[in-house]
Amino acid sequence: MNVLVLNCGSQSLRFQIIETDLELIDQDADRRLAKGMIERIGGQALVTLQAEGQKKVRHDEALRDHRAAIDLVLRWIISPDSGIESVHSMSDIHGVGHRVVHGGEHFRKSVRIDSNVIDGIEDCMELAPLHNPANLRGIRAALELLGGGVPQVAVFDTAFHLTMPETSFLYAIPYQLYRRHKIRRYGFHGTSHRYIAYRYRQMCQINREEVNIITIHLGNGCSACAIRNGDSYDTSMGFTPLEGLLMGTRSGDIDPSIIEFLTHKEGMTLREIDTILNKQSGLLGISGLTGDMRDLLDEEAENQDRRSRLAIEIFCRRVRKYIGAYYADMGNTQAIVFTGGIGENSPVVRQRICNGLDASLGLTIDHDRNTDAVDGHTGLISTDDSTLAAYAIPTNEELLIARDTVRVIKDVPRRW
Amino acid sequence: MNVLVLNCGSQSLRFQIIETDLELIDQDADRRLAKGMIERIGGQALVTLQAEGQKKVRHDEALRDHRAAIDLVLRWIISPDSGIESVHSMSDIHGVGHRVVHGGEHFRKSVRIDSNVIDGIEDCMELAPLHNPANLRGIRAALELLGGGVPQVAVFDTAFHLTMPETSFLYAIPYQLYRRHKIRRYGFHGTSHRYIAYRYRQMCQINREEVNIITIHLGNGCSACAIRNGDSYDTSMGFTPLEGLLMGTRSGDIDPSIIEFLTHKEGMTLREIDTILNKQSGLLGISGLTGDMRDLLDEEAENQDRRSRLAIEIFCRRVRKYIGAYYADMGNTQAIVFTGGIGENSPVVRQRICNGLDASLGLTIDHDRNTDAVDGHTGLISTDDSTLAAYAIPTNEELLIARDTVRVIKDVPRRW
Repeated sequence: MNVLVLNCGSQSLRFQIIETDLELIDQDADRRLAKGMIERIGGQALVTLQAEGQKKVRHDEALRDHRAAIDLVLRWIISPDSGIESVHSMSDIHGVGHRVVHGGEHFRKSVRIDSNVIDGIEDCMELAPLHNPANLRGIRAALELLGGGVPQVAVFDTAFHLTMPETSFLYAIPYQLYRRHKIRRYGFHGTSHRYIAYRYRQMCQINREEVNIITIHLGNGCSACAIRNGDSYDTSMGFTPLEGLLMGTRSGDIDPSIIEFLTHKEGMTLREIDTILNKQSGLLGISGLTGDMRDLLDEEAENQDRRSRLAIEIFCRRVRKYIGAYYADMGNTQAIVFTGGIGENSPVVRQRICNGLDASLGLTIDHDRNTDAVDGHTGLISTDDSTLAAYAIPTNEELLIARDTVRVIKDVPRRW
Repeated sequence: MNVLVLNCGSQSLRFQIIETDLELIDQDADRRLAKGMIERIGGQALVTLQAEGQKKVRHDEALRDHRAAIDLVLRWIISPDSGIESVHSMSDIHGVGHRVVHGGEHFRKSVRIDSNVIDGIEDCMELAPLHNPANLRGIRAALELLGGGVPQVAVFDTAFHLTMPETSFLYAIPYQLYRRHKIRRYGFHGTSHRYIAYRYRQMCQINREEVNIITIHLGNGCSACAIRNGDSYDTSMGFTPLEGLLMGTRSGDIDPSIIEFLTHKEGMTLREIDTILNKQSGLLGISGLTGDMRDLLDEEAENQDRRSRLAIEIFCRRVRKYIGAYYADMGNTQAIVFTGGIGENSPVVRQRICNGLDASLGLTIDHDRNTDAVDGHTGLISTDDSTLAAYAIPTNEELLIARDTVRVIKDVPRRW
């Protein structure tokens, strides 16, 4: 089966075409046929398209909305010019998998999209006002353009975390606020954490129930997840993706009293403060330069920039403290696993996060292994005598979305 | 020297008279002569007075303000009826030590109160709008009533934490918000954490610089402190005493986005939300019954109340996670030390906090030792083969305030 995976942001669209099926999944032999990205939807958009084994093609094009963007993608996919193997007409697209950020408490696993599911995603709109509307626009456009004949599946960022116990997901606020408005920890990046748990299990050849690890997704957004007996047991993102680790431009944890203080001192509205905490904080806020870890590492190395160094150090200490918190709480952690753009590709950040963990948790980073684990390389990065192991494993949310799509369409239960 | 220790809350006053001096401090032989508490100042107040070795005396009395309350205390102290040893006139009060909640970044240690110090405390008013005004009222009233001849000293809750490095005290928000408004982690309960570090050092007969412990103050307010080389290295309360651990009625850590969501969903003002997070959350918020841990333990034991159990479990897990975070981050933690009303007196809460820490951090609670460590008893509560020790040590902030008062008056540098 050829599955189109769609990930719609507020002004962006990322997609992949993945050839997969039950046997291919079993053999781990599914493969990507094409991928692409469209940015700045709603104006002169930036389009990047690439069939596997072909060169990347870029162009500008006015695209008024997500429907226009998906239409462009579909036309490119089936055009002979794209050079995509085995996809020549719309009938060669056998399913569509949509990334949906928020599934609330309702969607515990991936589901085939019908009008009830659309209503359910709409119900979660106010919980994810930045993300779910774009996800829904993508779903509606894809339904219109492909028709009801092509099954479509929603895969939720929150679903993996719905195994968390109440003691993990409840905030210590009046209980009726949970009852009435479902204010609780949801957690995000669930597809990534789930994928890493799956890869770890495969690598160690153990059963799902035997997986007790801490996964650390460090990308534009950052989150940690305590995975106990194969299930999400705790995670650092909360009611929204703002809480927890420090991110490129997001603050992560702060004293909630700061918000009221800022309205008084700076006369800011809550909307403005929300923008500051989400877009002008994190690495960018501390350094005053950039939210991109690569640039900060350069600034630190080349210019000895004090605040860049500070931003990196605070970022790393925050991760280290979450590792310690989950390690103490879980009781039998086997490994920590780094993933995401930074987690997969920055040996220096991984090393700095783990500084001191040799003395406290028995985790020593092996310099050579750590240096080698970049560019999609999966591997152990701790020394053999570490009592807590560390790995770098590249994430692949799109693959998991494609596989979920196949299994939902074929009505085969999944374990991951 | 007889030192009057004053702790003024918004509608309350606590006091002690402590006989202390440099030699008494060296011999650990200073002693309390009297103590008392006045509640509901500003109306028909509730007065509780007790000289050491005498019975507690209670009465009601209309007290319009803190000045009236302190006047009452002074008159009682010198009256023959009170039965306080060696204090018979105002000239027998040799110094006053005031607890001041917020000293901002300026007050790194206890200081003799003069007009500059009063201005400095006023400057910190907006950082602690609930506490500093009452503290200042107490200082002004005491100065008026006792005159300039009796030296008075301010002891700050924040001072101990000013040794924290930037990587501990900076939030990941725009750096200019720290520069402009001093929005940063301050931490509170500093006098308690400092006292515990001192007692630990004394007990273990080690130097100040050798103290590497995690202190856990669990009372009405709750906070944890990572003490490295004798100094505060990190702490859980932040810009205000709202952040961090779950408390009787305070939420501790939450996703800051919840605030804006509540203004929309419930049409609440920020002031109302502040009240909810400070007065209706924590143990009270989850249980819906009470913010008092003793009552919750009873509810759980006697009525198997589900939400009481939940509140206790979430409380304990939060502490456990902070222990793990600091343990991983510090690298060479020798012990965790419980203090405060709950920390000193609840073996069951201490046991539940430490559940699972045997497997993760090598800390096993010794049932008998733990059970015995109540009612002011100081002691080891972990097993001999634990690689991380645990202690219960009763705190005594008043004693430290009295000692600081003596040392500031005599201009003797202090180490603790």
